[in-house]
Amino acid sequence: MPSELECAMQSLITVFYRYAGKDKDKDTSTLSRRELRELMENELSTFLKSQKDPAAVDKIMKDLDANGDGRVDFEEFVSLIVGLSIACEQCYKMHMKKMGKN
Amino acid sequence: MPSELECAMQSLITVFYRYAGKDKDKDTSTLSRRELRELMENELSTFLKSQKDPAAVDKIMKDLDANGDGRVDFEEFVSLIVGLSIACEQCYKMHMKKMGKN
Repeated sequence: MPSELECAMQSLITVFYRYAGKDKDKDTSTLSRRELRELMENELSTFLKSQKDPAAVDKIMKDLDANGDGRVDFEEFVSLIVGLSIACEQCYKMHMKKMGKN
Repeated sequence: MPSELECAMQSLITVFYRYAGKDKDKDTSTLSRRELRELMENELSTFLKSQKDPAAVDKIMKDLDANGDGRVDFEEFVSLIVGLSIACEQCYKMHMKKMGKN
């Protein structure tokens, strides 16, 4: 049986491909702007709601698209997840510190 | 309810802290060499078994420990998971390509 960590890595891949294959374009191994928007709206809604800027997805797309081809591949997608995970971990660490002090 | 992707990010953090807090040292927010070994043996056993080199964990520790303090923090740990996820995704892509050809 896969471990919790192996399941987490599997989830990154399956979620990415679930959305990468949505549009009926040829490229089912990268996210179009529309696919990225759908992924973020469904899978990262808490984060997206915290972004006041309506152009947030477009800006994220621009930031992620390191090679400038207008699409987000798995490596580029993972950099978003890493950034969010590190931000979450920093919150968690601060929370634990606060708890320890009380 | 958190999405599959949010659960995956949560797993990265909870698994990391489950092992970071194992040794009774003061530092419960980074992994010692022994904690990293335990994490990899339990949570990444498939990957570890594929490494023929008995010093694999030590080498990984050295690679991950970007700031050279002899411990692995969350950011350094995430870079291992990213590397493994990208490797897995490349295998998945090759597999799908092969399936498409048959």
